[in-house]
Amino acid sequence: MSTLVTGIGELVTNDPALGSGPLGLVHDAALVVEDGLVAWVGSAAAAPDADRRTDVDGRAVLPGFVDSHAHLVFAGDRAAEFEARMTGTPYDGGGIATTVAATRAATDDELRAHLARLVAEMRAQGTTTVEVKSGYGLTVDDEARALRLAREVTPETTFLGAHVVPTEYAGRADAYVELVTGPMLAAGAPSARWIDVFCEPASPHAFDGDAARVVLEAGRAAGLGLRVHANQLSAGPGVRLAVELGAASADHCTHLADADVEALAGSGTVATLLPGVEFSTRSPYPDARRLLDAGATVALASDCNPGSCFTSSLPFCIALAVREMGMTPAEAVWAATAGGAAALRRTDVGRLALGSRADLAVLDAPSYRHLAYRPGVPLAGVLDV
Amino acid sequence: MSTLVTGIGELVTNDPALGSGPLGLVHDAALVVEDGLVAWVGSAAAAPDADRRTDVDGRAVLPGFVDSHAHLVFAGDRAAEFEARMTGTPYDGGGIATTVAATRAATDDELRAHLARLVAEMRAQGTTTVEVKSGYGLTVDDEARALRLAREVTPETTFLGAHVVPTEYAGRADAYVELVTGPMLAAGAPSARWIDVFCEPASPHAFDGDAARVVLEAGRAAGLGLRVHANQLSAGPGVRLAVELGAASADHCTHLADADVEALAGSGTVATLLPGVEFSTRSPYPDARRLLDAGATVALASDCNPGSCFTSSLPFCIALAVREMGMTPAEAVWAATAGGAAALRRTDVGRLALGSRADLAVLDAPSYRHLAYRPGVPLAGVLDV
Ligand SMILES: [Zn+2]
Ligand SMILES: [Zn+2]
Repeated sequence: MSTLVTGIGELVTNDPALGSGPLGLVHDAALVVEDGLVAWVGSAAAAPDADRRTDVDGRAVLPGFVDSHAHLVFAGDRAAEFEARMTGTPYDGGGIATTVAATRAATDDELRAHLARLVAEMRAQGTTTVEVKSGYGLTVDDEARALRLAREVTPETTFLGAHVVPTEYAGRADAYVELVTGPMLAAGAPSARWIDVFCEPASPHAFDGDAARVVLEAGRAAGLGLRVHANQLSAGPGVRLAVELGAASADHCTHLADADVEALAGSGTVATLLPGVEFSTRSPYPDARRLLDAGATVALASDCNPGSCFTSSLPFCIALAVREMGMTPAEAVWAATAGGAAALRRTDVGRLALGSRADLAVLDAPSYRHLAYRPGVPLAGVLDV
Repeated sequence: MSTLVTGIGELVTNDPALGSGPLGLVHDAALVVEDGLVAWVGSAAAAPDADRRTDVDGRAVLPGFVDSHAHLVFAGDRAAEFEARMTGTPYDGGGIATTVAATRAATDDELRAHLARLVAEMRAQGTTTVEVKSGYGLTVDDEARALRLAREVTPETTFLGAHVVPTEYAGRADAYVELVTGPMLAAGAPSARWIDVFCEPASPHAFDGDAARVVLEAGRAAGLGLRVHANQLSAGPGVRLAVELGAASADHCTHLADADVEALAGSGTVATLLPGVEFSTRSPYPDARRLLDAGATVALASDCNPGSCFTSSLPFCIALAVREMGMTPAEAVWAATAGGAAALRRTDVGRLALGSRADLAVLDAPSYRHLAYRPGVPLAGVLDV
């Protein structure tokens, strides 16, 4: 069964061979979907026939967003903590430990329902690929469970046992790293594609460069790809470690030394920026312009999580990237689609070329520019074909 | 026919007599709607019976947003101008004159369809009352037409012939003010509740304090209420003029002298803040905290328009107000509901007390806090009862 999508006012292919500019833009375009893949793409005037037709009435179509950084397996929320942070009110609600406790206490079905709800919420905003991390279990069984549940909704599952040192290991980070790289990794790896670590010497709850290296090397030995929470709070060793070890992505990149920017630019490691975090923690934004000008590959992702950033909206992240981070609308859209795909080392998503997955985001607008031009407006959805 | 709404996890009434704090919060609440009005409100445990029931499953319910500042009668968009502004690229697309030309060239039905689409888009985001200004016609017939069309969708119609001095009157602002206060006002007034003027001596296209006074006094003489675009680009005379003349609202208030803040605080004039404009023009935000601490009444509105701010989302404005303007989540929610109502001098909307209109916004979240905690996520809708 093939479907011809007509009436595409503007098509973002992300394939410069198919259209103009880095977005590979085609105006008055059409596209044929067959067996879930793009079977033809080009100008509407040249479109072939198909079994069925669907018309999008002049709307813009783009590759579904690829959200390459999200923490979606958890229970509870931390709205009160957010409010206290925003209003400068003292708050001792326990921070991430609250989420860990609530997650451990939740049943599989509770976690599954909450996860499904967040994935559906993302899809309703145009996201068709999402990476999901563990990291709120922090025991062997709870991390393995989080990854099993994540694997039910996405192949892009990431073992983040090294999210923080849990309360019960306070002052014994070394012992916790042994647990993470030993039995926890063994239990989690069968459901994980990636391993990740929160490398941040500036935080007493996170992991320094040496510990992060141990975690990543253990993950690599277990067959996992590498990702790093790097340079969020300070210009620490995370980014250079990510590049040295050939990680797919260094995420956050808020505080970068020149050497970090150079390392990223000369590497296959994507700089994944998460501006929702800076929005929701009232922190300075990462400098996307500096990274792009140096030649680094930049992705935008949500970092959807109950603590530092509870947005699930890549359109919102695109608008922030344009307002706050020196990205053009085209660069931001590329980063949230093809950039996210690069950060997951995927070539089947993030673009709409022959053989790509037919993950189609459709905008209630004539151009991708409207994602930044109309901030906060729910323009994006997924076209089911 | 009466309807009992049950399962309200958190109800914002904006009536301190009904619940806790300035938002008049009631948890585990219920509400009875009869003939489109709130007939009962209180704790679920004490709820009376009704002809029908609808359950919102623990969600938060609040008064529908009151968007007291929007420019929705126009044709065309200016996405290219937005992109040029954000990327620092020179652009001479004509600015507002482009919108004026496109609006004049559009048919009634084209304008009507576009207006209806924007109003529906707002409603889908929880806005149940919207003010609509003219101001892209700038001829007697085109302004009268804009107001007739606006009146088809809202009683809150505002004559803004004094939006800018149109190209054909360049250098003859006095002659244009004569037109605005003479035949244009006469033609527009029958469809208008309010008159507004863009008072901004810093702009060559806008109106200085003397011209603004002439416009407002003519409007008042024609029976219209007063609103002022004031102090957007500089600490000009707009705010003090608005207060002196008893305007319902001074809108923008981005650049305020101490005397402006004092004037607002001691007045019945609402300070309506439009942070979407500062977001979309990369300008410094107004200082809501300063206004609130001085005792001024603050409203939040979208300023939805194709040039300086094409958002239609009050949830987005709430998130910006918390991130950028020193408002608490509660203050921001109040400003986008009860504040907007005060700026329109309405007591039947913006709150959910006995006899209020049953304009119910419902969130896909347990608390109003989530509007700021979950930026960009389309949580708000309207509950049809
Ligand atoms: Zn993260
Ligand atoms: Zn305006």
